[in-house]
Amino acid sequence: MKQNILITNDDGVYSKGLRALIEEASHFGRVTVVAPEHGMSGMSHAITMANPLYLRKVRISGDVSVYACSGTPVDCVKIAVDYLMKYDAPTLILSGINHGSNSNISVIYSGTMGAATEGYSYGVPSIGFSLVSHDVAADLTASRHYVRKILERFLERNGGEPVCLNVNIPTLPLSDIKGVKVCRQTKGYWVEEFTRNVDPRGRDYYWLTGRFVNLEPEAEDNDEWALANGYVSVVPVTLDMTDRKALTRSGDWFDSLD
Amino acid sequence: MKQNILITNDDGVYSKGLRALIEEASHFGRVTVVAPEHGMSGMSHAITMANPLYLRKVRISGDVSVYACSGTPVDCVKIAVDYLMKYDAPTLILSGINHGSNSNISVIYSGTMGAATEGYSYGVPSIGFSLVSHDVAADLTASRHYVRKILERFLERNGGEPVCLNVNIPTLPLSDIKGVKVCRQTKGYWVEEFTRNVDPRGRDYYWLTGRFVNLEPEAEDNDEWALANGYVSVVPVTLDMTDRKALTRSGDWFDSLD
Repeated sequence: MKQNILITNDDGVYSKGLRALIEEASHFGRVTVVAPEHGMSGMSHAITMANPLYLRKVRISGDVSVYACSGTPVDCVKIAVDYLMKYDAPTLILSGINHGSNSNISVIYSGTMGAATEGYSYGVPSIGFSLVSHDVAADLTASRHYVRKILERFLERNGGEPVCLNVNIPTLPLSDIKGVKVCRQTKGYWVEEFTRNVDPRGRDYYWLTGRFVNLEPEAEDNDEWALANGYVSVVPVTLDMTDRKALTRSGDWFDSLD
Repeated sequence: MKQNILITNDDGVYSKGLRALIEEASHFGRVTVVAPEHGMSGMSHAITMANPLYLRKVRISGDVSVYACSGTPVDCVKIAVDYLMKYDAPTLILSGINHGSNSNISVIYSGTMGAATEGYSYGVPSIGFSLVSHDVAADLTASRHYVRKILERFLERNGGEPVCLNVNIPTLPLSDIKGVKVCRQTKGYWVEEFTRNVDPRGRDYYWLTGRFVNLEPEAEDNDEWALANGYVSVVPVTLDMTDRKALTRSGDWFDSLD
């Protein structure tokens, strides 16, 4: 079946990763792109509430239409699904290819994955693709190969079910990548080191630079292990944030509280 | 035990809800506040990557210190935990009281809950409090009562375990609230209606206004039901976004893909 594909990202409408994703996706159907005007890394699931949004037509050629939106990646998905494609709903939503890893708990800070999970909230199968390199000019040969292969297999086996995948691709030559691992999110957290400095007006400022603390470096069924061992990692992602274990544990904590 | 409490919010350092939370929390220990300079509603788990952060001392009196930060709610938690309180780690992190509901999938868009889950990522027990009313001058009598009661009970029964709670309080007089329900996140999603208009420079702009679509209006064990039936809802929240059901279903999708 020919797909009706919506594509967005968080690096902005002119990023190299977006261009690569458009080209690979266009083998599978019609493509509408609504991507942020500017870089929106780290914007997570943010939406624009206090300001209006602008939408700009960038180019329309054949089966590919490209728009830029002034808002966040999630705004892009919303204005696409509920306005631009309102009577022509997408059958597949893709985000990326992000320049930088979104494995482990980074999924929660990521604009790329914010957009993918937003698509999924509407019941549309959605995939976020990220390359584990922040280099905006990174070689995308291996990434493109796996985007294409994963899309083929996904469309063949998923059967249109709403599901959301977080795909991360290691920074290795294609021949060194060992395959694809479906796995779970690695437990861990980001610690920041704040660089303190003084601005030209004499005010102190702080810049955050984080490092990931892996709380289960020995486990072999998670995305950090997969990436460190030369695999593309695929983590299915949910939007139900309920902590089932804590729900059981805390069920009677607030009984007869008045 | 006297707590070392970090407080933040997403409505900004001068909001009425924040003031109320500071006053209630200060019964339980020392309070450090790092809250955004400006309103940050809908900022989710966003972090500031491309810009520096500024931190401003607002007031220090007795056991309460208040700072304003130029960044997002998550930035506030990060600069508090990893810089300001680096050698004096918080034992409890609170966010709110938010002016507006953060029940159902709104947890994912919410700056209030972004901050609470960030606190939890560091292994610190964290609670976000929200009142189901967007009125910035809303009566907080019932909210204050339940913040105090929930904190008392939580500190008594939780035993310092890292857990994150999403607490929503219905807009009812105290005497009409029936109690507290620990429950799960309601399944559903937000649909937007985009208001289109023309700005003074002749450019089209769009403003998003959403409505929540409840996909399980009959269920009685979720937060929408609790709130609609006069209860304070408490949903324990996780940061492990792995979709366990989809993980099982998709486990072999990408086998021997090269």
